[in-house]
Amino acid sequence: MTTFSFLDDYSEGAHPDILRALTESNYIQQAPYGEDSYSAEATARIKARLGDTFDGAIHYVASGTMANIVSISSCLRPHEAVIAVESGHIVVREAGAIEATGHKIIVAPPVDGKLTPANIEAALASNAHFPHMAKPRLVYLSNATETGTVYSLTELKEISTLARQRGLILFLDGARLGAALASSKNDATMADIASLVDIFWIGGTKAGALLGEAIVVCNPALAEDFAFHIKQRGGMLAKGRLLGIQFQELFGARNLFFENARQANAMAAKLASGIASGGYAFEAETATNQVFPILPDAVVSALKQHFAFYTWRKSDDDHSVIRLVTSWATPEHQIDAFLARLAQV
Amino acid sequence: MTTFSFLDDYSEGAHPDILRALTESNYIQQAPYGEDSYSAEATARIKARLGDTFDGAIHYVASGTMANIVSISSCLRPHEAVIAVESGHIVVREAGAIEATGHKIIVAPPVDGKLTPANIEAALASNAHFPHMAKPRLVYLSNATETGTVYSLTELKEISTLARQRGLILFLDGARLGAALASSKNDATMADIASLVDIFWIGGTKAGALLGEAIVVCNPALAEDFAFHIKQRGGMLAKGRLLGIQFQELFGARNLFFENARQANAMAAKLASGIASGGYAFEAETATNQVFPILPDAVVSALKQHFAFYTWRKSDDDHSVIRLVTSWATPEHQIDAFLARLAQV
Amino acid sequence: MTTFSFLDDYSEGAHPDILRALTESNYIQQAPYGEDSYSAEATARIKARLGDTFDGAIHYVASGTMANIVSISSCLRPHEAVIAVESGHIVVREAGAIEATGHKIIVAPPVDGKLTPANIEAALASNAHFPHMAKPRLVYLSNATETGTVYSLTELKEISTLARQRGLILFLDGARLGAALASSKNDATMADIASLVDIFWIGGTKAGALLGEAIVVCNPALAEDFAFHIKQRGGMLAKGRLLGIQFQELFGARNLFFENARQANAMAAKLASGIASGGYAFEAETATNQVFPILPDAVVSALKQHFAFYTWRKSDDDHSVIRLVTSWATPEHQIDAFLARLAQV
Amino acid sequence: MTTFSFLDDYSEGAHPDILRALTESNYIQQAPYGEDSYSAEATARIKARLGDTFDGAIHYVASGTMANIVSISSCLRPHEAVIAVESGHIVVREAGAIEATGHKIIVAPPVDGKLTPANIEAALASNAHFPHMAKPRLVYLSNATETGTVYSLTELKEISTLARQRGLILFLDGARLGAALASSKNDATMADIASLVDIFWIGGTKAGALLGEAIVVCNPALAEDFAFHIKQRGGMLAKGRLLGIQFQELFGARNLFFENARQANAMAAKLASGIASGGYAFEAETATNQVFPILPDAVVSALKQHFAFYTWRKSDDDHSVIRLVTSWATPEHQIDAFLARLAQV
Repeated sequence: MTTFSFLDDYSEGAHPDILRALTESNYIQQAPYGEDSYSAEATARIKARLGDTFDGAIHYVASGTMANIVSISSCLRPHEAVIAVESGHIVVREAGAIEATGHKIIVAPPVDGKLTPANIEAALASNAHFPHMAKPRLVYLSNATETGTVYSLTELKEISTLARQRGLILFLDGARLGAALASSKNDATMADIASLVDIFWIGGTKAGALLGEAIVVCNPALAEDFAFHIKQRGGMLAKGRLLGIQFQELFGARNLFFENARQANAMAAKLASGIASGGYAFEAETATNQVFPILPDAVVSALKQHFAFYTWRKSDDDHSVIRLVTSWATPEHQIDAFLARLAQV
Repeated sequence: MTTFSFLDDYSEGAHPDILRALTESNYIQQAPYGEDSYSAEATARIKARLGDTFDGAIHYVASGTMANIVSISSCLRPHEAVIAVESGHIVVREAGAIEATGHKIIVAPPVDGKLTPANIEAALASNAHFPHMAKPRLVYLSNATETGTVYSLTELKEISTLARQRGLILFLDGARLGAALASSKNDATMADIASLVDIFWIGGTKAGALLGEAIVVCNPALAEDFAFHIKQRGGMLAKGRLLGIQFQELFGARNLFFENARQANAMAAKLASGIASGGYAFEAETATNQVFPILPDAVVSALKQHFAFYTWRKSDDDHSVIRLVTSWATPEHQIDAFLARLAQV
Repeated sequence: MTTFSFLDDYSEGAHPDILRALTESNYIQQAPYGEDSYSAEATARIKARLGDTFDGAIHYVASGTMANIVSISSCLRPHEAVIAVESGHIVVREAGAIEATGHKIIVAPPVDGKLTPANIEAALASNAHFPHMAKPRLVYLSNATETGTVYSLTELKEISTLARQRGLILFLDGARLGAALASSKNDATMADIASLVDIFWIGGTKAGALLGEAIVVCNPALAEDFAFHIKQRGGMLAKGRLLGIQFQELFGARNLFFENARQANAMAAKLASGIASGGYAFEAETATNQVFPILPDAVVSALKQHFAFYTWRKSDDDHSVIRLVTSWATPEHQIDAFLARLAQV
Repeated sequence: MTTFSFLDDYSEGAHPDILRALTESNYIQQAPYGEDSYSAEATARIKARLGDTFDGAIHYVASGTMANIVSISSCLRPHEAVIAVESGHIVVREAGAIEATGHKIIVAPPVDGKLTPANIEAALASNAHFPHMAKPRLVYLSNATETGTVYSLTELKEISTLARQRGLILFLDGARLGAALASSKNDATMADIASLVDIFWIGGTKAGALLGEAIVVCNPALAEDFAFHIKQRGGMLAKGRLLGIQFQELFGARNLFFENARQANAMAAKLASGIASGGYAFEAETATNQVFPILPDAVVSALKQHFAFYTWRKSDDDHSVIRLVTSWATPEHQIDAFLARLAQV
């Protein structure tokens, strides 16, 4: 690649603090399968952010799809279904992983990328024919969403209240939870989320780790036997230390998890601001580390000579929406270069 | 842990060359999901060892259980079953992962830890009642076996011939393939294995990687659509570079994969030899990096004050078989210390 | 029930010829599990209608959901998905049965209750992101559809051509295949269907049997090992004779399968005609044994005092669409009674 | 078949009372999917035999494998396993149906065809390595067993006590429950069984029905949502009346369920007694409707000219164990004919 890539937020390796920690701890013998002291310390550090009332468990797995598979399939009986937005990652980007564990996904139309209480109610109402329709049982949110939007605390509380009233398990996919929590649009804390959902996960891969996601099982009833599911689905690493060390670093004194996300969001904001200054419109407001400007096709072509990014969709005959993604590793000079190039073309 | 551990071969991190390579490549942007240039180079290096006739594909996943899940479930139709020895890893140490993908495992009694043509024939004969019995379809071997023994080239050829005659898929779990190939008892090459089986995997985790296994799909018919299965089961890493870089190092000029295994086996051989000099017997000959001496219970207790290891089983009223495992990271001075301590007690 | 029911076409038992045949054959010993002579004869009779080129196999199962489960799951590898209309029976009335076998269903908007080549192409186009999206592989049709419409021969040919071009398996759910083939709108024969699809089933339950569906595997490659799937999913009856005898009767000299369907359709046509005479409109043209008139709510209430039927949906503030279903067992005098009552209110 | 068959107890149709009831009720309209009045009456009649404390639910399905699939898979979470004897029907005669729902079966060696508390304890002890081994959670019994033996009340109580102590679900496959309860060796009632197990099923197919098994969910916690599982697995009949009518007859005033079983057992006892009079030994005592005499191979060959039965296994160089199965429909004159033929040869 001679061009600079804004394709995604996982094109680089890990934050250097993580590599340093891996190197320094390398010869210290540890128990395998998540029983290492680093994982214990990472868990303690994460729990410190979840509030005093947290009474659940934390587990580490290698990938986001694995986190979704384990979280969802461990909760559900065979006849139970998931409610998710049509654009949800489990719906369109995990190769049928949830169905492969036996569960139907009931889709709802997204509102600004998000589920709403009204959408959930509608899904319940249209799937109520006992016993001919799979029983809606788990609500899948992602925060940030696939399109980079963020749930407000009020929105989360409303969905949580509804879920508890209707006996639904509330699950939050946090592949980009850092970006959400560090968003200028955000007013929820990780402790808020832990108090409102039954289970969620904290994405490490997109927040500066080499790999790894931390599943936070908030509802103690769901925590029982959880490690079995990780093992059975192939999500348990012999050298669980690899995950423990990384989350220990992300949630250490430097607050790397939030710092990395803040940096990614700041780069996106700068990019958005610069593009707006050029007089261009956007498909959506930039809340996290994804920017969706609408540009003339000729401009898009010119930019692609120096930068890699996705053309999201045709906007009209001679304009397209593009997607630009930033990360903890995006150098500010590449933002400057992009904006300079945009100004030229 | 203040004691030194001979519990397993995954108590430490990674070979320092791997950490160095991860650090050096850290900021080079790469395509995700295994499309990075490191994975391509790793594949080229592994293929160079598989012989000119190899016409399959190589994929990287995060864990051994994942390698088994993906390899087996991608090959089989729903009614097809696996034949494995009772002591096989998929039978007793993967929390029902294979059954969780819908497939029955037919167990056969091991001979020296291994499957034999006779055992396979017996399994076929006792599972032939169409359509009331699941159809035996895939033979699962592991090399080295769970008890550290190694298949000879002749044994592999006989099983391969039988599998082809009977329409069976032959699969080899290579969690400790390095230890097997580096064994003094071994007379097979990786190219031999590639020519005799339909699919196998090369274990990185126990050969000096942080994590990662390379699945080698030898039979081109089984390679079609393979990436879907990895994605669907949650085994695909966004930063696939992490696996590519490690296998690139393991199969580089220094031949780290074999060197690490040879070192582990050498430490085990030294341990076995020293224990034998003390006049103690063994449960089995030491072929790879696992040693199974039979020691008086008092000696076992004394050793456990300074070393961690598993008591495998009671041998008689006052003796036990213990298991000692060495790795690429086992320092020779710990072998010396163990033998010195044994001599004392 | 003191009222007469137009709720469905499975409120009564079986055609009396079937009960007679069961009684007459009762003490003749037969081989179990579908190996009986009645099943063989039924198969011969069905094959006689499938044309000389038919080279597949026929199997009998107890229920329609079972027929769908076995047909679909026996064809697909784990990563492969089904394309179906949103209103398809497998989508909304089988409690997630297909997903429970591990497969995603990709839904398309129905056109007159049906899939179209354009809809299928759109589903392929929006599920093409390898390997992140499940691979579309099987097209699910039902004929008659859930809303009682019928595929024309031209429509079936177009879909079949597309399926073969795109490497898709074409499957037809024939729960109401009799009603479709006996429809005045129909121009396809059972032999046409057998030549155009890979696998379909002939519904016995709604055509006068106590239970039972005949799965016709047209594509010989899909027929291999088929009985295993029926056994494994719990669809094989010890007394398979029960299914064989019934299909032998349905496809005997009296042509009961078509006669029963023709009678059901005729009763529906009479009902529709009489309602139209009253000046009422319809949600859809009546093609088979389902009638969807639009009636004032007051009329609906009055009719419900004497007849059972579903209110399908509100049409406007004071009108509703109702669904009336007839069967082989619907007595003509009940049609007369319904129309008389309608005329009164 | 010109010979008379002792191959199994499902070679004939149904008891004539059942056919008569089906015929008489044929045109009475009923609600579908098990909501018919016959099923309600059958349930009332069965409950009358289960004791006043019974607080569960009863459901009807089409086949024994379906009864096992639904009963087991509805109870278990994905990581939970079944304990069964090696000779169990789910282990060797259901084509991997339980594994196809995702669950491992842990096998124990049978004692007289049965599980024992000691065997269960041993299975628990050897599958206790959390989280690497699937968690033993459900105990599968069948009564009568595959080899025709019967659990005594004491044996059932001991296993039940153990199951409750160890948090295990106790499940009893009653494919031949009639034969067991009607056995001269039996001292348990159906109410005893209902009080000791969590879930069991009453086999109709082998007790004079055309098809059908009644699943009795004793533990109210397991009864919740049960109908979903039946629907999802394809076990729910549109004309559920077919199952309701049959069980209504089996458990009516004539006590057909027990009468049919008693008749089958009496024929087996007569067969066994006659064979014993000829001086022949048996593989096992005859407790139900299966007889396992040991005969010279020449005698076996001669008998096979007139009777069909399975050769179970070679007993020595010139003797074999054969299996003779009787049913409610076995005419006494065929027993006489068999014994006469045996006396001749």
